[in-house]
Amino acid sequence: MTTVLFAARDAQWVEYEPHLRAGFAAEGVDVQLTTEVADPATVDYIIYSPANALQDFRPYTNAKAVLSLWAGVEEIVGNTTLTQPLCRMVDPGLTEGMVEWVVGHAMRHHLGMDTHIHGQDGAWRGLVAPPLARNRKVAVLGLGALGAACAEALAALRFQVAGWSRREKQIDGVTCFSGDDGLKKALSGAEICILLTPSTPATENLLNAQTLSLLAEEAYVINPGRGPLIDDDALLSALDSGQLAHATLDVFRVEPLPVDHPFWAHPKVIVTPHIASVTRAETAALSVVENIVGHLRGEPLRNLVDRDAGY
Amino acid sequence: MTTVLFAARDAQWVEYEPHLRAGFAAEGVDVQLTTEVADPATVDYIIYSPANALQDFRPYTNAKAVLSLWAGVEEIVGNTTLTQPLCRMVDPGLTEGMVEWVVGHAMRHHLGMDTHIHGQDGAWRGLVAPPLARNRKVAVLGLGALGAACAEALAALRFQVAGWSRREKQIDGVTCFSGDDGLKKALSGAEICILLTPSTPATENLLNAQTLSLLAEEAYVINPGRGPLIDDDALLSALDSGQLAHATLDVFRVEPLPVDHPFWAHPKVIVTPHIASVTRAETAALSVVENIVGHLRGEPLRNLVDRDAGY
Repeated sequence: MTTVLFAARDAQWVEYEPHLRAGFAAEGVDVQLTTEVADPATVDYIIYSPANALQDFRPYTNAKAVLSLWAGVEEIVGNTTLTQPLCRMVDPGLTEGMVEWVVGHAMRHHLGMDTHIHGQDGAWRGLVAPPLARNRKVAVLGLGALGAACAEALAALRFQVAGWSRREKQIDGVTCFSGDDGLKKALSGAEICILLTPSTPATENLLNAQTLSLLAEEAYVINPGRGPLIDDDALLSALDSGQLAHATLDVFRVEPLPVDHPFWAHPKVIVTPHIASVTRAETAALSVVENIVGHLRGEPLRNLVDRDAGY
Repeated sequence: MTTVLFAARDAQWVEYEPHLRAGFAAEGVDVQLTTEVADPATVDYIIYSPANALQDFRPYTNAKAVLSLWAGVEEIVGNTTLTQPLCRMVDPGLTEGMVEWVVGHAMRHHLGMDTHIHGQDGAWRGLVAPPLARNRKVAVLGLGALGAACAEALAALRFQVAGWSRREKQIDGVTCFSGDDGLKKALSGAEICILLTPSTPATENLLNAQTLSLLAEEAYVINPGRGPLIDDDALLSALDSGQLAHATLDVFRVEPLPVDHPFWAHPKVIVTPHIASVTRAETAALSVVENIVGHLRGEPLRNLVDRDAGY
């Protein structure tokens, strides 16, 4: 009998339990799925989110893996008691939702939609047509599961997509760069810049005064990744100087974004409340089940976190 | 020597002439391209838009085709003096621009963007995540060059796309319907409805009280096609009753839309000034050149208008 401990929020248990039970049953695997165990040493797998009483992983001496319910593990990876293999969430529903949000807001900027949404005053504005997507360069920073899927979708819509990641990647239709020099090439002349790197010490302030200056004049920044990827003051300066036309920001250093933060009132910023995409219990539970069942059958764990890289 | 008469607006001549000359030269075809001829009987092909002095085509006794610069030919097809073969504009640039506009506004509605664009008041609204595209039905009415390309792009983004056209069509990933019964099936339960049929007597008021009632509750209507496709009063009633959530309208029975038209001030309508897509001289000129050159080489004319159907 395999024991799987679910250590996350109560509300998540309500959401996930039926999908997890159905998933294990569909695979024909007999598991004891529980939120409590008498003896931590009996636990084989831990399904985890950090907003939970479980902070000390040392008693779970036989746990073969900790499976995060979150795609971003920056609040977990620093836990030194967690020495078991740690897996990130890769949820097809999360990825699809992110692609939809990123494509939507990239198109919103590309088409200049806000001019019309705010311009319902009866004036028939014969605007100059925007360039075609094929004549717009878009930079996607971060080519993990989310960034790669967004880059592919934007390329399929004919944008000139430059992708950048720490490690070299290859994605059909996307010009991929890596390393410091690659970052400059990816950003240079980009009219839309999308941030989807993980949040690590190495990516803090990835978008700063210097990197922002590489973008095309009147570029757009879209951040559905993580707040610390942007130097907020540098972003505000670039917006105020006219170097950037607009920023759409979904994530922040402090969330909820404080009501007196200058982003809220800035005419060139749209704040969205960390909604770009959410992990969806139905698809995420299946992803966890597949990872555990595969491992029980002798396959390697998927989506393992590299502790040194921090994601 | 082939004589090609350019009979359109002066501003179009300025835009198109260099691209047309370059196109014919690239094909190695020697043409006399002109805006005036002494003898109409010497004209082989007429490149045409209706905002032009040429209204009587009878003197052009040897013209092998009239090539419209417009995709919609409803203002040309009723000219009884025009008995020569008439070709619609199929411009790859127009198609790409339309796909971008339709995808952008479909995503805008799908994601509920306006709530955030109008909601920059400091309130962190933890909204319910929208369904994934794969759980949304979108109806695309009209599956010509524009509608088919939009339906394909929306299907590639995983929407459940139901397409409808007068004649039966087959499009990968799209459930295609035709005929009156098919129209009901295409519309039933659709949450987003996109209008891209040609404007003909048969499509006038295609979206009326009865067809609107087939859509899902709180559906969205997007009209980048032609104004007469919608019964305006029925649309306003459906918006006011809450049956429709929103309409984004780019085309109208009278353009520019009069400043006192109820669409402008309606809180559930966004008016855009016939900008969904434009014919782009560079790509459109090439399309005209290819059609003429192909015909000179013995190929059939492309994109011929069916006079009975009206498009």
